[in-house]
Order: sequence, then structure tokens, then C-alpha cells
Amino acid sequence: MIRIVLIGAGNVAQHLYKAFLKNETVEVIKCYNRKKRLLDKKQPINQVTDNIEIIKQTLADVYIVSISDDAIATVTNTLDFENKLIVHTSGSVPMKMISKTKRKGVFYPLQTFTAEKEMNYRTIPFCLEAENKQDFEILHRMATAISDKVFEINSEQRQTLHVAAVFVNNFTNYLFGIAEQICDDQQIPFEILHPLIKETAHKIQELSPKKSQTGPAIRDDHQTIQRHLGLLNDQNFKNIYNLLTQGIQKTHGKKL
Amino acid sequence: MIRIVLIGAGNVAQHLYKAFLKNETVEVIKCYNRKKRLLDKKQPINQVTDNIEIIKQTLADVYIVSISDDAIATVTNTLDFENKLIVHTSGSVPMKMISKTKRKGVFYPLQTFTAEKEMNYRTIPFCLEAENKQDFEILHRMATAISDKVFEINSEQRQTLHVAAVFVNNFTNYLFGIAEQICDDQQIPFEILHPLIKETAHKIQELSPKKSQTGPAIRDDHQTIQRHLGLLNDQNFKNIYNLLTQGIQKTHGKKL
Repeated sequence: MIRIVLIGAGNVAQHLYKAFLKNETVEVIKCYNRKKRLLDKKQPINQVTDNIEIIKQTLADVYIVSISDDAIATVTNTLDFENKLIVHTSGSVPMKMISKTKRKGVFYPLQTFTAEKEMNYRTIPFCLEAENKQDFEILHRMATAISDKVFEINSEQRQTLHVAAVFVNNFTNYLFGIAEQICDDQQIPFEILHPLIKETAHKIQELSPKKSQTGPAIRDDHQTIQRHLGLLNDQNFKNIYNLLTQGIQKTHGKKL
Repeated sequence: MIRIVLIGAGNVAQHLYKAFLKNETVEVIKCYNRKKRLLDKKQPINQVTDNIEIIKQTLADVYIVSISDDAIATVTNTLDFENKLIVHTSGSVPMKMISKTKRKGVFYPLQTFTAEKEMNYRTIPFCLEAENKQDFEILHRMATAISDKVFEINSEQRQTLHVAAVFVNNFTNYLFGIAEQICDDQQIPFEILHPLIKETAHKIQELSPKKSQTGPAIRDDHQTIQRHLGLLNDQNFKNIYNLLTQGIQKTHGKKL
């Protein structure tokens, strides 16, 4: 049994707590957060503390620090451990930002988490990194206990992955928001686009994005492109339409 | 029983053929395309013709013209009908582009179709338009026979929907392609991002895009934004990163 202390109470911490709850390889023995929030309705109250001294005295195999990126260095410094395995769960913070201990690692679930929403953890990719092989083994056992998709990813690769994740999650979601606003302006219910959005995401799981590309940009259909630009009222949306259209044409070897 | 003639052999025509095959309200009686291609392996050969004269002489309730946008005016002109119901399936062509007949309409399935791929037609939104009430009723009966999501959408709204669809499908797919290239450059398997892509699309079916927005742009996290820009080698990708980041910050009331 791998004994865990979990620090933080955000979406990732809550979902990790729930994921570990369901298996017998990993046990969360203590949680810390400043507001003493339970990570799950069913969590025993005495399992959560707001006193960092208690955490310092709790003997665990792994200390998971699942807090905001900026706070990782400070909090791990406060823990003041020299030889205990501390991991963070961030996509963008290098492993070496963990302070003091010689046993550092990363336990990064590459997914967007929503509070309260049930998820199938077995399909979530876990990106692992550790300074030494033994510690990597521990993280690997923890990850495979809850997921079927476990990858060894170093800090440099993880930073790259995080940029890629910004494109497929943050920026994609923003495009969805633009579409919603375009629909709202014409009193069209945005839900008409839901099935298209779902299928767009599903399609590339089987066919590469390059092969899935369709639309007026790749067809070099000037007439439709101009009509679309004419329909957009927002200058910012026009700029985005132009830049992405040019990008598609560049990728697929066409000129505007 | 509504008797259909189907003109064209592209993805949309093939999927409409398959969708109608499974129900008893609509019957496809004849298909036309220049290469005499079957729309489905099981289609009887004598149901398909490459002779437009045969189509002109075939008595049907509805003639569905599912061909490239540019060809709609010409082909419907060739049909030379004055009083038969002709509909096209395009998202971007106005209904009035259908030539000659007084009974025009649109039967637009708002989805991205892949050849051979099985789809659940009942979840596909059908956007309908017709010049008169009786013809709209026919289209409505056809659409509800295969789908649970049927909408009345006029030509102006449909054009707007088509722009919105470009954002959530063509442009989103292009962002997936950028992410794939970023991953390839660092020998990271793109499939690590598949679950995130799926969840990003699923999330907004329950939570609006505005509420789903996360990431360094909305947090106004300069340090991460700068690091990401430093990691991008392609100037085009940098421009897109900047423009979309500014867009998110503008939408959510923050300044760069």
C-alpha cells in the first residue's frame, strides 16, 4: 500500500482523492488545505487539517502538492523535507521548482477537471517524472492503479505538452465561445452546434487533424471566405478568421 | 411514404441515403451522379443513374441536390422543373440559388461527415427552410423520420450558423493540427492529448464556453504566456497564440 498525503483542495486534488478512493494500491492518509475543506462529501473530517505542522509529522510514502503553480516552491520549502518524495501535479512547473528534498517528482494528469463532475479516470493520461528510478517506480504504481494511460514525460516535454494543451483546450474553448456569441447575435440556439463540436473532437481520435481538415480555407473558396468576413461584426473575430484561414492555407500549401 | 430522388454522391448524400434506408416514412427511389457510384454497398445497381434525363422523368415528392455549392444553380437549372420540390443540403448557399422551380427548400444536416463512418443520425441537427408551408411540412416529416433535432432556420440564419460552424469545426481542427505538430517536434505522441480534446468538447455541452474558460490567458499569467511564446518555433503559431490570448482577455475583461 502506498500512503499519500495530499496538499491542496482544488479540482485536481479533489479528483485525485476520488480516484484513489476506489482502489487498493494507494491510500490517502491525510489532506491539508488552509480552509480545512473536505475533498469529498464522504471524507472523514479528521482526515483533513489546516495545520502544516501536522503534515510535517505525518509519515507518508508520497506527498502530492496540488496547488497553484506560483505556490509550489514556497509550500514545498515550508515542508522542509530532505529525503521524502514530493511531487507536484502541474503541467507547466519544472520538477526542480520543488524545494529542498532530494526526492522530487511530477504526477501530472493531462485533463481539464470540473468540480463535482464524475470522470472515468482510467482514460486520463498521467505524465510522470522523478529524479530517481525507485521514486519513478512508486509514481508508476500509483498512476497505473487509477489509469490505463501512463507516460514518462520529462520537464521539457511537459512544458511543450502544456503549450499544446493550451491550443486544444483553452484556445479551442475560446473558439466555441466566439461561435456562441455569433449564434446569440442572430437568436440561434448554440446547442445546434453541440453535435458538430463533439464529432470534431471525436473524428481526430481516428483520423489525423491534417486529414480531417475541411472548409472554405482549405478549398481556397474566396467567395465564401469573403462572405463570412462580411457577416462578422466584431473586428477581433475578423482578425482571428483571417489568421486561422491563412494558417490552414499555409499548412496545406495554398496561397491566399 | 415520401419518395425521394437523391442527386450527388458525396459524404452528405451517402449518409442521407443510409439514414433514409432505415425508416419507413421516406423512400429513396432513384439516385443520380456522373460516375454512377453506389451510395452504399447494398444499394441495387439499377437505382443509380448517370443520365439526368431519367431523373427528369422520375416522379418524386422531393429532389435532394447534395452537390458542391458552386454546382447547385447549374444542376437545378438543368432539371428544368417548374413545380417540383427541390432542396439543397448546403450550409452556405441561399435557398434562392435553386433555379426555376417555385418550390425550393433547404435540408441541411449540421454535422461533419466522414465516408464509411457509422453515425447516430438521431442526434444530428437538421436545419430546414422552404418557400411555402406545405413544403416545409414535407421536409419536417422527412427530418423527424431520421433525427430528433429539427430546426427551422432561414437562409440568413443559416449563413451565420455556417460561419459559427467554421469556428467550431474547421478552425478548431486546425488548432488540433498545430498541437499535433508541436508534439511531433518533441517526439511526444499526440494521442496523449486525445482525452483532453474529447473532454473540452464534452464540457461545453453542460457548461457554457464562457464559464469553461481556463488557462494562462484568463488568469493573466504573463510568466507562463511568455514561456509558451518562447517555446513556439513557428512565427505563425506565435501570432495565433498572441491573438487568441488577447481575444480571451478582451472577452473576460482583462488587459494584456
